Amino acid sequence: MKSFVEYSSDSDFSIYNIPFGVAVFNKEYIGCCTRIGDQIIDLATLYDFGYFEEIEGLIDNVFEAYTLNEFIELGKPVTNAVRLKIQELLQEDSILSKDEKTIEEAFYDLDKVKMMMPVHIPNYTDFYSSIEHATNVGKMFRDPDNALLPNWKHLPVGYHGRASSIVVSGTEINRPKGQMKPGDVEKPVFGPCKQLDFELEMAFIINKNTEMGESISTKEAEDAIFGMVIFNDWSARDIQSWEYVPLGPFLAKNFGSSVSPWVVTLEALEPFRTSSPTQDPEVLDYLKFEGDKNYDINLEVYIQPENGDQNLISESNYKHMYWNMTQQLAHHTVNGCNVEVGDMYASGTISGSDPKSFGSMLELTWRGQNPITLSNGEERKFINDNDTVTMKAWAKKDGIRVGFGEVSGKIIPAK
Amino acid sequence: MKSFVEYSSDSDFSIYNIPFGVAVFNKEYIGCCTRIGDQIIDLATLYDFGYFEEIEGLIDNVFEAYTLNEFIELGKPVTNAVRLKIQELLQEDSILSKDEKTIEEAFYDLDKVKMMMPVHIPNYTDFYSSIEHATNVGKMFRDPDNALLPNWKHLPVGYHGRASSIVVSGTEINRPKGQMKPGDVEKPVFGPCKQLDFELEMAFIINKNTEMGESISTKEAEDAIFGMVIFNDWSARDIQSWEYVPLGPFLAKNFGSSVSPWVVTLEALEPFRTSSPTQDPEVLDYLKFEGDKNYDINLEVYIQPENGDQNLISESNYKHMYWNMTQQLAHHTVNGCNVEVGDMYASGTISGSDPKSFGSMLELTWRGQNPITLSNGEERKFINDNDTVTMKAWAKKDGIRVGFGEVSGKIIPAK
Repeated sequence: MKSFVEYSSDSDFSIYNIPFGVAVFNKEYIGCCTRIGDQIIDLATLYDFGYFEEIEGLIDNVFEAYTLNEFIELGKPVTNAVRLKIQELLQEDSILSKDEKTIEEAFYDLDKVKMMMPVHIPNYTDFYSSIEHATNVGKMFRDPDNALLPNWKHLPVGYHGRASSIVVSGTEINRPKGQMKPGDVEKPVFGPCKQLDFELEMAFIINKNTEMGESISTKEAEDAIFGMVIFNDWSARDIQSWEYVPLGPFLAKNFGSSVSPWVVTLEALEPFRTSSPTQDPEVLDYLKFEGDKNYDINLEVYIQPENGDQNLISESNYKHMYWNMTQQLAHHTVNGCNVEVGDMYASGTISGSDPKSFGSMLELTWRGQNPITLSNGEERKFINDNDTVTMKAWAKKDGIRVGFGEVSGKIIPAK
Repeated sequence: MKSFVEYSSDSDFSIYNIPFGVAVFNKEYIGCCTRIGDQIIDLATLYDFGYFEEIEGLIDNVFEAYTLNEFIELGKPVTNAVRLKIQELLQEDSILSKDEKTIEEAFYDLDKVKMMMPVHIPNYTDFYSSIEHATNVGKMFRDPDNALLPNWKHLPVGYHGRASSIVVSGTEINRPKGQMKPGDVEKPVFGPCKQLDFELEMAFIINKNTEMGESISTKEAEDAIFGMVIFNDWSARDIQSWEYVPLGPFLAKNFGSSVSPWVVTLEALEPFRTSSPTQDPEVLDYLKFEGDKNYDINLEVYIQPENGDQNLISESNYKHMYWNMTQQLAHHTVNGCNVEVGDMYASGTISGSDPKSFGSMLELTWRGQNPITLSNGEERKFINDNDTVTMKAWAKKDGIRVGFGEVSGKIIPAK
C-alpha cells in the first residue's frame, strides 16, 4: 500500500497502522483523530464530509468526544470498518486524495495539535507477566534459588492499580513523598522517595461492558481488546519495599503512570503475531489457548538528564511475555469480575533474559549495585529529578512498520 | 427536634440523620432523595417547589441525576446547607408540613421506591485498619507470636480494589470460580470457591477532585469526606490464600462488594464522635491528628439461610478502628495521588477484641475450626449458596439515633 501522504520509512505511523487518539486541534477544540506520518486527521471532519456514510452502526458525534470510549464501545465490526475505510482513503489516488477542501479542514501538522488521554479508564489492573522480571525481583528481594513464588506459573499474577493517576505522555510527574525504612534505621522515615524507577510495560484497552458473573474466555478475549498503548508504571522502590506486605503495592505506584497517546489496534498488530514462551507446567483449562497470541514488538527505554542527550538504556520486546493478553483477560474475569469499556490492563514490567533488556532501573542496576553511566558522565542508580524517561515501541516485518510512538515523562521535584 | 413525619423510635432515619441516596420512584424515574422514617423524599421535586431557593451554590437539575456525584461535588457549604434545610422542613409546623401538594408529589412510601447505587465510584481503596482483624489474620496465616507485620503500626496499610463490581444492597452475588490450592493437593484446582466469606466494613466517600501532586492533610480530611456507607467486602478465602503473594488480593475480592444505599453525612455522625485506640509507637508527623476522629457506630452481621431465620453472628463497633479516616486519607494522598469525587475508601474488616465482635467468618470460625450453629440447626464454616448476609450499622446517644439501614446480599450458585 502507498499513501498520498508522504512519510519517512521509519515512521511508526505508516498506512498499515491507523491508530486512534484524542487531540486538541489548534488549541481550539477536542476530538478523536488518527495519524499518518506527521499528519493528524480530525475524524469528526471526515465524518461530516460523508466519508464514513456506508459504515453501519457508526453513530453521529461519536468522534466529537473527549475520549475514544464511545467509539470503542461500538465494537470491532464498526471500529475495524472505520480503520479500513481510513486506510483506503489514505491510499494514493483515493477520492480523499483529490478532495482538497476536506484535506485542508481535517489534516493538521503534528505541531498544531496536543495529544490528550485517549480513553477514560474506569478500572486499571497491572499484571506481572514477564518471567524474567518476576525472577529478577524474586532473586533480589527473596530467595535467589526459589525466585518465583509457587503460584506464578499457574496464574497470571495481577493487582488492581489506581486509574485516577494515569496520565498521557508529556505530563510531568512529581517525585512522590512517603514512608520508607532503609535497612540502617530503626524507625521509618518520611521524605521524597530516593529510589524512583520506571517500569517498561504495555497495556491493552477493553471495548465492552460485561455483567457481573460473566467471564471472557481466552477464545473470546481478542474480540474484547480494542488495542494497546505503551505504559510506564512509575514506581517508588523504597516506599514499595516498606509498604507492600501483605496487601501489595499502593503508594509506591499510585502517584502516577504514563501512557502513549495513540491506541494501536490489535488488527494493525496482526502481521507481528508470534508464539509465546512454552508454559510448563501445563496451565489449567481456562487458561489454555490456541495459536500465536503474542506480538513481536520492539521496546526501548531512554533517559535524558536535564542538560544532556537521550541515552538508550534498555532494549526489550513484548514477545518475552510468559502470560499473553487472552490469558490475562480470561483469568481476570473467570471469577465473574465485570469489565468496562476503556478498562486498561497492563502487562507488568517486560524484561528479557539479556541484562540489557531489563525493563526497570531496579533490574538494570541490580538494586543500585551497578549504576548506569550516561553520555554526559553522570551515573544513575535510579531516576533523578528533571530526568525525562522515554519509552518507544514498534513492530517491523517484511518492510511493514507499525509503531506506538512514545510515552515520555519528566520527573520534577517533590511538592 | 420533632418531625411531622411519624417514625418509630428505633428508626435509623430519624430527623437527626437526613442521609442521601438515589432511587427509582414508582418504577418510573431516577433521582436523588433523602429519607425520614419510612418516607423517601424526592429532592428534585422539593427543589422544583422552591424549597432550596435561598441556598447559594446549589445548581439546577443536580438532584435529577443517576448518582449523587454532582451534588456531592458542590462541597460542604452547599451540601450541609441542603441537609440543614431539609431537617428544618421536616420539623413539625414547618412550611412544608402544611404544603399538602408538595408532600403528595415528593414523598413516597418505602415500598414504592427501589434504591440504586448512591454514587459513581471512580476509584476504590480498601484499608486494613482494625488491629484486631490484622492480628487475627496474622495469627492464622503467619506467626502467632508476630502476628502484625512491622509496617502495620506505622502506616494505614491499604490496597486498590475493583470499583466496577461494587453494587448496591439487594444485588445477588454469584459465587466466584477460581484457582485454589488446598493444602492436600500438589497442583492447583479450578472450581467454585469453597470458603466464601464476608468482611464487615464501613467506607467513606470523597467530595472533591485534587490535582496530582496535591495532598490532603489530616486537618483538611474531614472537609473532603461527604459521608459513609456500610461496606461488605465479599472475599473468597481459598482463592485469596493461593493468589495473594506477592501483589495482594485480586480475584478473591473483585467479583463483588456490596454497599448500603444511604450515605450518612459526617455531620449527622457528629454527636457520636469518640476517641481512637492509643497509637503506640507514635506515628510520623503527617499522620498526627487532633481531637476525636473516631465514631461510635454499632455494627451487626446476620446470616439468613435459604429456609430459615436471620441469625445474629457478630456485634462489632466502628470505634475499634486503630487508624481513622483522616489518617487514611492523609496517607493515601501524601505521595501526591489524586482523589476524585465519589471515590470510596473502605476501612477493612472491623473486628473488636471479643470473639463475638469479629467481622468475618474466617475469624468467627477461626478458619473453619469452630463452625457457627444457626437457629435451624445447620452449621456454617463459611457462607453457603443461597445464604443472605446482612449488615446493620447505627449510632445512638442521648436519645438520638442515626443509622445506615442495612447492606444485604444473597450468594447464588456459581454461573
